[in-house]
Amino acid sequence: MAKENQFVEQIADIEKDFPQWYTDVVLKTKLVDYGPVKGTMVIRPYGYAIWENIQREMDRRFKARGVENAYFPLLIPMSFFTKEAEHVEGFAPELAVVTVGGGEELSEPLAIRPTSETIIGTMMSKWLQSYRELPMKINQWCNVMRWEKTTRPFLRTSEFLWQEGHTAHATAAEAEEETQAMLGVYKEFAENCLAIPVLTGKKTEKERFAGAVATYTMEAMMHDGKSLQAGTSHYLGQNFSKAFDIQYLGQDGVLENAYTTSWGVSTRLIGAVVMTHGDERGLKLPPVVAPVQCVIVPIAARKPGVVEACEALKTELEKAGVRVKLDNSDNSPGWKFNEWEMKGVPLRIELGPRDIEAGKMLCARRDTYEKLERPLANAADSVKELLDEIQKNMLETARKHRDERIVYADDMKGILDAVDDGKFVKAGWCGCRACEDKVKEETGATARVRAEGESTDKCAVCGEKAESVIIFARAY
Amino acid sequence: MAKENQFVEQIADIEKDFPQWYTDVVLKTKLVDYGPVKGTMVIRPYGYAIWENIQREMDRRFKARGVENAYFPLLIPMSFFTKEAEHVEGFAPELAVVTVGGGEELSEPLAIRPTSETIIGTMMSKWLQSYRELPMKINQWCNVMRWEKTTRPFLRTSEFLWQEGHTAHATAAEAEEETQAMLGVYKEFAENCLAIPVLTGKKTEKERFAGAVATYTMEAMMHDGKSLQAGTSHYLGQNFSKAFDIQYLGQDGVLENAYTTSWGVSTRLIGAVVMTHGDERGLKLPPVVAPVQCVIVPIAARKPGVVEACEALKTELEKAGVRVKLDNSDNSPGWKFNEWEMKGVPLRIELGPRDIEAGKMLCARRDTYEKLERPLANAADSVKELLDEIQKNMLETARKHRDERIVYADDMKGILDAVDDGKFVKAGWCGCRACEDKVKEETGATARVRAEGESTDKCAVCGEKAESVIIFARAY
Repeated sequence: MAKENQFVEQIADIEKDFPQWYTDVVLKTKLVDYGPVKGTMVIRPYGYAIWENIQREMDRRFKARGVENAYFPLLIPMSFFTKEAEHVEGFAPELAVVTVGGGEELSEPLAIRPTSETIIGTMMSKWLQSYRELPMKINQWCNVMRWEKTTRPFLRTSEFLWQEGHTAHATAAEAEEETQAMLGVYKEFAENCLAIPVLTGKKTEKERFAGAVATYTMEAMMHDGKSLQAGTSHYLGQNFSKAFDIQYLGQDGVLENAYTTSWGVSTRLIGAVVMTHGDERGLKLPPVVAPVQCVIVPIAARKPGVVEACEALKTELEKAGVRVKLDNSDNSPGWKFNEWEMKGVPLRIELGPRDIEAGKMLCARRDTYEKLERPLANAADSVKELLDEIQKNMLETARKHRDERIVYADDMKGILDAVDDGKFVKAGWCGCRACEDKVKEETGATARVRAEGESTDKCAVCGEKAESVIIFARAY
Repeated sequence: MAKENQFVEQIADIEKDFPQWYTDVVLKTKLVDYGPVKGTMVIRPYGYAIWENIQREMDRRFKARGVENAYFPLLIPMSFFTKEAEHVEGFAPELAVVTVGGGEELSEPLAIRPTSETIIGTMMSKWLQSYRELPMKINQWCNVMRWEKTTRPFLRTSEFLWQEGHTAHATAAEAEEETQAMLGVYKEFAENCLAIPVLTGKKTEKERFAGAVATYTMEAMMHDGKSLQAGTSHYLGQNFSKAFDIQYLGQDGVLENAYTTSWGVSTRLIGAVVMTHGDERGLKLPPVVAPVQCVIVPIAARKPGVVEACEALKTELEKAGVRVKLDNSDNSPGWKFNEWEMKGVPLRIELGPRDIEAGKMLCARRDTYEKLERPLANAADSVKELLDEIQKNMLETARKHRDERIVYADDMKGILDAVDDGKFVKAGWCGCRACEDKVKEETGATARVRAEGESTDKCAVCGEKAESVIIFARAY
């Protein structure tokens, strides 16, 4: 017992060594493990349950917008990639390639999908006949593979899980609107489900998706002030519809190329949750996606009536739709408190003989460490109310943390000082690639996203007239 | 319109050319399409929605049994396969192999998983410490790949979607019990959700999973009298736990090898639904998994109040949890009737001015072609009741069809005549491989499953003493 009780000390200090803290937390809470092949991960049940909650919430939103799920093949002929020039340039270096099937060398090598624009474009071209079938909105939940040199669980691995939405439209305006609308869905989801505030907007040309006309992103600030690209939505114009003949017969009988979009989020979001909310004790999970929302810990469990009362409470909460766990194990209450705090369970209920006698329960919030008494009568209402409060407070806390760490700079030194200090920097930019590259070289920060609706006089790098304001940050 | 109206004639005659009927139906109802790489399929939205319903129903059952979902890597080092001798022999010829990653030749080739016993065994070995952690029950929903020569959508493709459950137990008895219990879950699911009656029991040694001690199967009779293996559950004994060191410290402090199981069903089930229930007009989907359970077709839609009444009905049914579609398109009612019958929607509601005036609706059952009047008041109750009846009737119809086509034979000629006549044959078997092979050679039928609890005197092939009764059939 004594040994097991030490696990909190086994997590590196979050302020002193954030990367090690991250690795400790994701491994020790059993979210994830390293797979046998370098750069791969195993998503363990506790981590996968978060992904299931993300999927459920996200999928509901997609379907409400008329998106239908489908499944496209994993293997894509190499020749497909070469049809869109920028696309092949961007993805060719990262491909995993199948050359042998059923014991024989293949006549054409097949790539494991790094993304599916090429194969979905091919099928859309076959399916699409008339303007009546537009817009066509398809999504798939699947695995993808990008051969990466440096990997970290959830954040960057050779294989990961994601959803990729692909839509085709009759007009550029409608496709652009869809691109923006999906970014809006992502933002609303990030804030209301993951309690992660995000900055959204357009990427620079350098950072945009290979083959896109424009890439929109949502960027989240992690605990250490670095940025994580948490989701992207691409306006593809007619680039893919021309490369893959995605054509339809218009109302006027003329054959037209469609305008397409694609958008995706991945298991990276789990990493975002860990790095946004976690603290010195470990994970801190937002109730909407927490696998266990509430854990009941019996106090003096051997006293008559305690276990029964805990079980009755568990049943009541379950019926009310709360994801609840009763920790009936032989471990001490103190051990259980630490364990479930490390695992990030939003709410802990302690229930002992005296509480039962007084008709109340002790509720410990993971977000504020507050301990609150609530009546046992209508316990489900109290618990749901507290979970709602926790969800909202986590978003506000994260927003405050982030907003305090966004600063302005009007020269290179200002940018460097700010990112060294773990901050996002807003700075004027002339729009040229050389200045963008220079920021990267001298500060390690990249252009995360354009600050929409903001303007300034001069470029912080060259001093020429600024075309826009860019949010620079170091990033995962 | 005239051209489009002919689609029923475009489906091959189900009695004259069942294979062509199958291909016509799955393509024309947009369940599936061929992928660009030979042997692959694209699961289109209408087919994928069936899979989502299967997943939801199945996943609920798994979780109720304490199974947790997880995700393991797609790529498995080739060396893993060689650790279990029978396993490698069974799967090596079917592997797709990645030899290049990130532009470089890999030092060890990686197989795309054909099944995941080897990689899950490796991880279980790492995770499992003490008897306290047993049983360990893990499932994953994923894609797998087996390089096949002859392929048909859903039934046999290079890549398919499935779930694979993997459990580890302290004793052989407990693992065997789990194997049987999961087979029971599959059977209950097949009957109550897919309306497919299944025969369950043990496979012969020849037909068992590569590396298993025993394989249990559920076999379903298709419309043409052939059998489809619709799901399997394997008792693996200590074969994999010894090959992959899945060990735990027992209560007595001694290191023990666990006993493991694995079990799976796949998108093949969609093919089973098509081939069990379909008829001359196309698909016939059981309500529990139908993407659209009820379609509303307005009659004289331009008359005042008709569209409004249809929309109100749709809203009412949606609120009651019915998956309903209102077909508001410009096509004629007759065209819509054909279309939705081909797509297998269990219930059609026709609603016109006279129905509305009389406060009733006309309900057309897909399973019996009956047309029934029901009051518009409490429409949701009537619809749900009808859907329940359809679900039950489809199971009973399929059971009657099957039971009439199971016969006994006591010699080779009897077996041949029966399978030529599209039947399953029960016959005595001495237990030797030679007799089993001889049945295959001379009749094309294979040993599908042992008839549990039945016995007979002599082997239908050699006339020696029978060890068991086998159900022989030609199979997909």
